[in-house]
Amino acid sequence: MPKLRFAITMSLDGYVAGPNQSLENPLGEGGQALHEWLFATKSFRVTHGLGDGEGETGLDDDHAASSSQNVGATIMGRNMFGPIRGPWVGSEWSGWWGDDPPFHTAVFVLTHHAREPLPMSGGTTFEFVTDGIEAALERAFAAAGGLDVAIGGGAQTVQQYLRAGLVDEFEIHVVPLLLGAGSRLFEQLDDGPAGYECVGLASSPAVAHYTFVRAGSS
Amino acid sequence: MPKLRFAITMSLDGYVAGPNQSLENPLGEGGQALHEWLFATKSFRVTHGLGDGEGETGLDDDHAASSSQNVGATIMGRNMFGPIRGPWVGSEWSGWWGDDPPFHTAVFVLTHHAREPLPMSGGTTFEFVTDGIEAALERAFAAAGGLDVAIGGGAQTVQQYLRAGLVDEFEIHVVPLLLGAGSRLFEQLDDGPAGYECVGLASSPAVAHYTFVRAGSS
Repeated sequence: MPKLRFAITMSLDGYVAGPNQSLENPLGEGGQALHEWLFATKSFRVTHGLGDGEGETGLDDDHAASSSQNVGATIMGRNMFGPIRGPWVGSEWSGWWGDDPPFHTAVFVLTHHAREPLPMSGGTTFEFVTDGIEAALERAFAAAGGLDVAIGGGAQTVQQYLRAGLVDEFEIHVVPLLLGAGSRLFEQLDDGPAGYECVGLASSPAVAHYTFVRAGSS
Repeated sequence: MPKLRFAITMSLDGYVAGPNQSLENPLGEGGQALHEWLFATKSFRVTHGLGDGEGETGLDDDHAASSSQNVGATIMGRNMFGPIRGPWVGSEWSGWWGDDPPFHTAVFVLTHHAREPLPMSGGTTFEFVTDGIEAALERAFAAAGGLDVAIGGGAQTVQQYLRAGLVDEFEIHVVPLLLGAGSRLFEQLDDGPAGYECVGLASSPAVAHYTFVRAGSS
């Protein structure tokens, strides 16, 4: 059965983005440092067209690679797609990722404002969903053609799917940073999420990877 | 120079104790599970007189052992000492740890209610400090005789010392549990703590250990 999954990097004090997200700081102040472990991996660099196949291999690279393996569609919140709020009218914003985004699949952007689909190079198409997280999930599974659906982020989108009990698996990459402020992953969850068990914990000196699945499914 | 240190176990979602702490649940509901990794270690079992020198050795045991090494005095909050609130009058409460507590040093309990010192077997003496965290720290360093002072917990006491900028080193043991509620470690910190750097991250399948020191001191 195709699954709904997410993988996200969190500071030790619980933040997945720094405070004051903006055009200049898409990950918030200090948020860039969260992902240094990821940027160093070979699979990230290859996927994002950086360097010439260089990059670190090993445990962290394995975990970086697995987050995009077997993924046939992605769902993200509007704040992850871009810094624009309100209607799209007149906007030519097409995401943070340039002409050839690293998704290569349909990407469903949750928004209150309708917009025509936005096809990009390399197989990525941004589609804008205005009728809620369940509708987005249904469309994403249809588009994924039997593969899994990934939640790209950010925190609020992950929280919505966790509250709805729709997430099958997730991985949290905990980096040894203290951001002090920003977007917390584990809040707005109604004393949850419940019903998950950890099936993997391993670390490099840069990050510890915690993998959870629904209890009883492993 | 003697240091002020703490070591504390935290769930992946940020809690160091479960909700609804009580006489029956000193660590809160679900809080016992936080410390399973610790209870399994040889050094914990030896320190607490459990079994016959049995217990796991290796990475987790090394980290369990280091938290009490070179410690000459401990400071704890009243809620860690016991479930009693208000005046001590008529109370015979002497802590959670039986006649021979595992500290074997002076233990300074932060409280608003004066009480005579309480000597126990094995070298532990509980002393009750009513004039604040800095007075407690001064007395603890004096009692420690050149060794370090440990903050025993709980979250509020750790937060007070972090806010005051008095902590030199700390270790967070992050276990792959989601408690959903309880006492959070990283809150009430005024967007801090700032000025620390991680000098160690290592994990077993049960827990990841993050070690921090003041930036520039390593």
